[in-house]
Amino acid sequence: MNKLQQTISNIVHLPASAAERAQARLDSLTKPPGSLGRLEEIARQLVAITGAERPSVRRKSVIVMAGDHGVTAEGVSAYPQAVTAQMVLNFLHGGAAINVLARHAGARLVVVDIGVNAEFPPATKPADTSGNVEFLRRKVAPGTRNFAREAAMTHDEAVAALTTGIEVVEAEIARGAELIATGDMGIGNTAASSAIVAAMTGQPVAKITGRGTGINDAGLAKKIEVIGSALALHGLTKPGSAGILPAMPALDLLAKVGGLEIAGLGGVILGAAAARRPVVLDGFISGAAALVAAGLAPNVAQFCFAAHRSVEAGHRVMLETLGLKPIVDLDLRLGEGTGAALAMHLIEAAAKIYNEMATFAEAGVAEKH
Amino acid sequence: MNKLQQTISNIVHLPASAAERAQARLDSLTKPPGSLGRLEEIARQLVAITGAERPSVRRKSVIVMAGDHGVTAEGVSAYPQAVTAQMVLNFLHGGAAINVLARHAGARLVVVDIGVNAEFPPATKPADTSGNVEFLRRKVAPGTRNFAREAAMTHDEAVAALTTGIEVVEAEIARGAELIATGDMGIGNTAASSAIVAAMTGQPVAKITGRGTGINDAGLAKKIEVIGSALALHGLTKPGSAGILPAMPALDLLAKVGGLEIAGLGGVILGAAAARRPVVLDGFISGAAALVAAGLAPNVAQFCFAAHRSVEAGHRVMLETLGLKPIVDLDLRLGEGTGAALAMHLIEAAAKIYNEMATFAEAGVAEKH
Repeated sequence: MNKLQQTISNIVHLPASAAERAQARLDSLTKPPGSLGRLEEIARQLVAITGAERPSVRRKSVIVMAGDHGVTAEGVSAYPQAVTAQMVLNFLHGGAAINVLARHAGARLVVVDIGVNAEFPPATKPADTSGNVEFLRRKVAPGTRNFAREAAMTHDEAVAALTTGIEVVEAEIARGAELIATGDMGIGNTAASSAIVAAMTGQPVAKITGRGTGINDAGLAKKIEVIGSALALHGLTKPGSAGILPAMPALDLLAKVGGLEIAGLGGVILGAAAARRPVVLDGFISGAAALVAAGLAPNVAQFCFAAHRSVEAGHRVMLETLGLKPIVDLDLRLGEGTGAALAMHLIEAAAKIYNEMATFAEAGVAEKH
Repeated sequence: MNKLQQTISNIVHLPASAAERAQARLDSLTKPPGSLGRLEEIARQLVAITGAERPSVRRKSVIVMAGDHGVTAEGVSAYPQAVTAQMVLNFLHGGAAINVLARHAGARLVVVDIGVNAEFPPATKPADTSGNVEFLRRKVAPGTRNFAREAAMTHDEAVAALTTGIEVVEAEIARGAELIATGDMGIGNTAASSAIVAAMTGQPVAKITGRGTGINDAGLAKKIEVIGSALALHGLTKPGSAGILPAMPALDLLAKVGGLEIAGLGGVILGAAAARRPVVLDGFISGAAALVAAGLAPNVAQFCFAAHRSVEAGHRVMLETLGLKPIVDLDLRLGEGTGAALAMHLIEAAAKIYNEMATFAEAGVAEKH
């Protein structure tokens, strides 16, 4: 059994009993029952995921996977492909949005070159030498092939990228990470993600394709046409179907229309779930990775939090398919893990409420009439 | 001119130019224009409020005003009145939800007895002696009178409570506070807040009255009836009217059906705005205070952030009247400033994005095609 199969087999089904036990404690705390709404829901899920009496999510890591996409040759993105590598350097220099928000969350930032179409010289290192930013060179391939014409990856490349994600998250967990956030960088990756969600849910391409980093109307029409043709080329058009396909097709379609960073994030999600660590999904790209992960291991969504509802069309369909409700809705559409880093604070708040509040008995406060 | 009038006269109208200048900087940062959605909106507002080139909201204070309500004699609440004083002690012992969330936000917590119907012995002090929790004894009266039968406060008491709020926030600002959150504790205060929103917006009582800490159907029907009768008794029924009334009526209706903590929070909001400090409104009770503040000083909402959308019926009406859009929607209905403390992290995130991100030129990243 290879590492991917082993990891999938370690993902358990969470029993309802843990969440029920957690609710009993929540109802004993000095507040009207249920009055902390979604924080209580998050606390219950943290107890169920971790199996801990008092779940801690203090030690946090944001894992940003970067990869390029051959499909950019079709003109489906508002920015040139070179921006992927330029933004990796920006992450290492500390100037990107995810740097600001990971610092603000008190999270480590792990930037992974899993498939950037550029060579980073050996001297390329994080400017922050405190260990809070790490750069991992785990290139599986220098970008995907153009999925409008051929398969984006070979089967072996897809497995290698998934396995890389598992290994990266396992290393973070070995360092002590208690809460994992997923982030992405890859010009062209909303096109790949739209192709994945269309193939896995059977929804019309036009409904689940958006403007990514900001293409205009003509660009959007072109993107929809390119994705639609590619799905037909790869035999992935399933009009009228819905729901997640079984295991092997998820891996197949990942190879055909996915991305190296999407596969890597799928591995991060699977690895976190296998180790019973909660994982916070950022927006549309992370959602595509989670769809693939759920195709491989149907229980995986139990270990996931949806950080936010992205502006990107199709994100709503992803979340409904995964059965996840976004924590915030701030009209974000940046990626990089920015929404996930913001949500980490709210998830940690839920854990602290659960762990630190006094009970009615402890505080000597009268209960409800 | 008294302190209240002086404060009101110091609240300026914010020019649109500051927000426009802020957007120009936001568009120069290494992200697709507009891709950080509401964080960009918040950053623009922070620049406009503070007038600073790089607005800082690192130093934070949550001000929780506690007061009792004579109207609890009518049986409109799920908890006995004694809980107000018991919860003040819980705040001082560090076991309440707001303690957990203020610590998590890195905020000072200032607990103000502005009208609790209990005497706290001189030895009553915060267990946390670090200075992060403070207890202020500023009792204007030992609770309000029963507004179902007579005016809740005299005109002088209402002015004294408003002035107390101004003084408390001025002291926090003098200590360095850059971001203020409002919180409340007062059994019965959703009834007073519903009366305020009904009187100020002309909306039907049944539409804007909710279950507070958790009354049942019979309790809710009773609460609606009590509030409706009280509005008639005080001549505050204005069927079909809408929008905020002019200055003197806002003070009048505050005295007739308001609360000491609601008046105090109104003062906090006015004082923060006069000093050009952003203020984060918690839920329904803080919203009532903001409605009163806006009745006294129409520009005040420009200085406010609505932290969240409360479960409490009527909160939506308040926010629409104030022209505010909630930052999160987490099904909260606890009060104490809990939602506001959570939102502080997101507001600070917006400030840091504005202040700390690299521009395209600085990072050497290519701009859009």
